[in-house]
Amino acid sequence: MLVNVVDNTPLCQFITPSIVDRSPIVIAMSSGGVAPVLLRYLRQKLETVLPANLSRLGAFSEKFREKVKQTLNGVTARRYFWEDVLDGDIAEMVEKGQDNKADDAFELALQAAAQDKKVEGQVYLVGAGPGDPDLLTFRALRLMQKADVVVYDRLVSPQILELVRRDAEKIYVGKAKSNHTLPQDDINQLMVDEAKKGNRVVRLKGGDPFIFGRGGEEIQTLIQHGIDFQVVPGITAASGASSYAGIPLTHRDHAQSVVFATGHLKNGTIDLNWPALAQKNQTAVFYMGLTGLPIICEKLIEHGLDANTPIALVQSATTEKQAVLTGTLSNIVAKQEEAQLQPPTLIIVGSVVSLRDELNWYQ
Amino acid sequence: MLVNVVDNTPLCQFITPSIVDRSPIVIAMSSGGVAPVLLRYLRQKLETVLPANLSRLGAFSEKFREKVKQTLNGVTARRYFWEDVLDGDIAEMVEKGQDNKADDAFELALQAAAQDKKVEGQVYLVGAGPGDPDLLTFRALRLMQKADVVVYDRLVSPQILELVRRDAEKIYVGKAKSNHTLPQDDINQLMVDEAKKGNRVVRLKGGDPFIFGRGGEEIQTLIQHGIDFQVVPGITAASGASSYAGIPLTHRDHAQSVVFATGHLKNGTIDLNWPALAQKNQTAVFYMGLTGLPIICEKLIEHGLDANTPIALVQSATTEKQAVLTGTLSNIVAKQEEAQLQPPTLIIVGSVVSLRDELNWYQ
Repeated sequence: MLVNVVDNTPLCQFITPSIVDRSPIVIAMSSGGVAPVLLRYLRQKLETVLPANLSRLGAFSEKFREKVKQTLNGVTARRYFWEDVLDGDIAEMVEKGQDNKADDAFELALQAAAQDKKVEGQVYLVGAGPGDPDLLTFRALRLMQKADVVVYDRLVSPQILELVRRDAEKIYVGKAKSNHTLPQDDINQLMVDEAKKGNRVVRLKGGDPFIFGRGGEEIQTLIQHGIDFQVVPGITAASGASSYAGIPLTHRDHAQSVVFATGHLKNGTIDLNWPALAQKNQTAVFYMGLTGLPIICEKLIEHGLDANTPIALVQSATTEKQAVLTGTLSNIVAKQEEAQLQPPTLIIVGSVVSLRDELNWYQ
Repeated sequence: MLVNVVDNTPLCQFITPSIVDRSPIVIAMSSGGVAPVLLRYLRQKLETVLPANLSRLGAFSEKFREKVKQTLNGVTARRYFWEDVLDGDIAEMVEKGQDNKADDAFELALQAAAQDKKVEGQVYLVGAGPGDPDLLTFRALRLMQKADVVVYDRLVSPQILELVRRDAEKIYVGKAKSNHTLPQDDINQLMVDEAKKGNRVVRLKGGDPFIFGRGGEEIQTLIQHGIDFQVVPGITAASGASSYAGIPLTHRDHAQSVVFATGHLKNGTIDLNWPALAQKNQTAVFYMGLTGLPIICEKLIEHGLDANTPIALVQSATTEKQAVLTGTLSNIVAKQEEAQLQPPTLIIVGSVVSLRDELNWYQ
């Protein structure tokens, strides 16, 4: 048993040497009588996040502590260094008992850190998923908790923002439709500037950064300025909407492929390859297509899809505000005029939509 | 401060009343001298998973403990009930201080649980993501830690399986190419049987269950047998490969849409809508296409793509075994004969592949 949870009052009475011998960690609750069911629940939660062999890691950190202090100047430099060690490969080696290997890797890492006199910031381009904070990845959360600066936009839900490290600076860069709070070039420059100050910058994006996230463009600017970066994928809105609306994107009897496009209006029209999108046995998903809905339906029919092809609008997928409206290419515009779903709303077109009647489980 | 971590030796000396008053939880490390950097790291990790207002939750559980014992027969029924309460809406109300609302909801939930005499199992169809355990979602992990039975196949990495609840039964249902260890119908039936026994079944799938995961078909069998289910999206292999190989799937200058298809060989051929796949300004991703690679290249050229169109093979995306091979539609087959990448390998076709030279950060 890795973690032992005991109720207190008075505290020391419960933390006996025998309990301590059995578990490397003892957790004492300091107020309120606590039911055993809650203690068990807490233990489970804690064991999930703690490295399995904590005492090894403790001894290891202690062994090198003085040396790191002598080698690296400045609290920030030391903090970065230790966080990298504790969250990285070296900690894995220590936990697995590969002591010599870990020592060697540590010495190398320390030398490298010492030579890199100026601590340069990094930028992490992080996918925050479709909205439900429960759909964040571990990697995303860990980076959010390490960030000095978080740059985010409209598609990142408030519940997710709450999980950012409390003393991180949060910078909103907007992106309401055709009313960018900050132009893309300025966003790119902002990240460069913050990283050059030595900050760890997390660029938090709804969904996945490499699917309609302009991630590629933002990184290109970073590269031009020699800034280090990493990319963390997120669950794209289409996946989230699919699971939470009960609409598989592919299905042996309905669709052998799925295509994602943006239904963004430009000068009153949508510039897309309609023949490729209007295909049977394929699911088509449109991001940001609500305003262009009439054009999307019209173009798909014009290019050969049956007017009775099922279509679904999924508003704020995976969140409390999720709402789903289904119909056909010929009647969905009228239905939406009635229902008035709001952005962000995803559009799914194809016969898979008919499965929702059976597969819907979320609402 | 929610969590306070203290080093021990002797333990009680450090856990003074003043520390206890400041934090509802005190954590004592029981062995090894522990560097301050590790203590801070631990505190961060723990605060991430603990509900913010633990002592409220403790008092609440204590208040209803006897009543639950009297109302629900059997340890399993009580365990399920409490887990649902502590992980669900009621706990949220308690933490937010909505005491009356929480009491009412609790009474209702308890009555409902009491009337539902037989505890029926549930099936959770869970996307395990592309391979890196760090890309699991919180929801996926929590369900894995609650499961009685976990049904998994070849695409779920061993590192991810290690995170399953230790006393859960793990059932391997295979799916090596054209050599299914268990036919799909038997997998479907297995889940029905386990759920009917009252088990919580987690069906763990590589990637996302609704993108080439046959999730829809598995659920349809569950529905026919009246089994309750939920679907948890995961990061699909295309997203994982994209981020970790430095190849955006969409990019303003290269691709306005992205299409996913399977390159699965059937009787020596691949039955796909080639004209729709062979489009410029679109990225095409093929899952399970390694054996069919020569056919894929041939067909795409035959249907109009330039023979010099860039293509990437991404082996075991996001894991230690990740390897990326790039080339063109005309030379990738020869390159792969040399390189011999192994499945699972994803194929990405389109001019976005050319961005990798610049954007690659992972390897």
